[in-house]
Amino acid sequence: MGMKANGKISTAVIRRLPKYRRILQELMVKGVERISSNELSALTGFTASQIRQDLNNFGGFGQQGYGYNVEGLHGQIGNILGLDREYRMAIVGCGNLGQAIANYATYYKTGFVVTSMFDVNPKLIGISINGIEVQDYSEMQSCLEKNPVDIGIICTTKGSAQDVADKLCNGNVKGIWNFAPTDINVCEGMVLENVHLSDSLNTLAYFISHNDPRNEA
Amino acid sequence: MGMKANGKISTAVIRRLPKYRRILQELMVKGVERISSNELSALTGFTASQIRQDLNNFGGFGQQGYGYNVEGLHGQIGNILGLDREYRMAIVGCGNLGQAIANYATYYKTGFVVTSMFDVNPKLIGISINGIEVQDYSEMQSCLEKNPVDIGIICTTKGSAQDVADKLCNGNVKGIWNFAPTDINVCEGMVLENVHLSDSLNTLAYFISHNDPRNEA
Repeated sequence: MGMKANGKISTAVIRRLPKYRRILQELMVKGVERISSNELSALTGFTASQIRQDLNNFGGFGQQGYGYNVEGLHGQIGNILGLDREYRMAIVGCGNLGQAIANYATYYKTGFVVTSMFDVNPKLIGISINGIEVQDYSEMQSCLEKNPVDIGIICTTKGSAQDVADKLCNGNVKGIWNFAPTDINVCEGMVLENVHLSDSLNTLAYFISHNDPRNEA
Repeated sequence: MGMKANGKISTAVIRRLPKYRRILQELMVKGVERISSNELSALTGFTASQIRQDLNNFGGFGQQGYGYNVEGLHGQIGNILGLDREYRMAIVGCGNLGQAIANYATYYKTGFVVTSMFDVNPKLIGISINGIEVQDYSEMQSCLEKNPVDIGIICTTKGSAQDVADKLCNGNVKGIWNFAPTDINVCEGMVLENVHLSDSLNTLAYFISHNDPRNEA
């Protein structure tokens, strides 16, 4: 069941929503107007009953015998995810990973905008990445006061991640997207999203070792 | 249900295994010896019944009233995932993202070893990244014949990704880990794992926009 006792949607359901939306977006590009839960099942790897349950959490957008309207469902999931607004982001740690994330965000041109970048390395401070000047990490707190951001992205080493998280907590950031491969503690009320690339690599290992080329979007 | 009609474990179950293993590893570091499905539920965000169902697919490692042996279950999930062997990997595209992935793989020192790197950029060809020399992409096929790899990692732009995938298919690679934000077609039998960073970012947006700081590992 997707609903918890307190009426909140379970995190497992929420984590499936971006995938639904991404697949619906691909279907829109292909000109597909409607889709059944069985077809969505084949594309997502989730069961049709799981999909119906998930989407029922939000009132159920499907109609028996018709399925789901692709564009309508795409828009509604986007609204649920909070993608109908803009998010300002600061990248902390501007090495290869930080720069790759900056390029990625710029590429997508969605509602996620990198507005500031910080590093401790004198060779990086002052250079411009996609039009954003890398600023001195020691000035981050005052910079964030002047130009608040919604999301802080941690692209530092493991050893620096907790210090960055502490400063982002003091800097009135609402959420942290953590790429450092370590557990960090965040202040009360802070949203934390850890990126675990190893999960994806381990899944790949499963399919290789089982000689099982099931591929999904 | 995790099992499909053909007796295969569903991809949704397989995708949860790396997370179970990661959390079990953290528990081992903390010295925890056993854990119940309810405790695993709190740590993973999946329901206890989902967890029991998932692990029953592999024979069920739990004992009523005891729960799961942390170290035993960690080892068994690792074996199921195919982590009891080494995977040789080639990185194609050695810009910021490719170099970040090379650093990441080196950092983890697990069974995933980067053995070759390729790029088309003359400024990158010949340089050494973590002890691996970047080779000319035009020589990739003959390089892979001499030094076969299990996994090809695509870190190129969207526009180059399909060409790289085609050459990896011809190069006897078993699986592709694709970071290029585009759909690619792969040859029969090839395992494809796409990394969708936007799914993680969209999940973060949900929790921020709903002012809902539920955090999990």
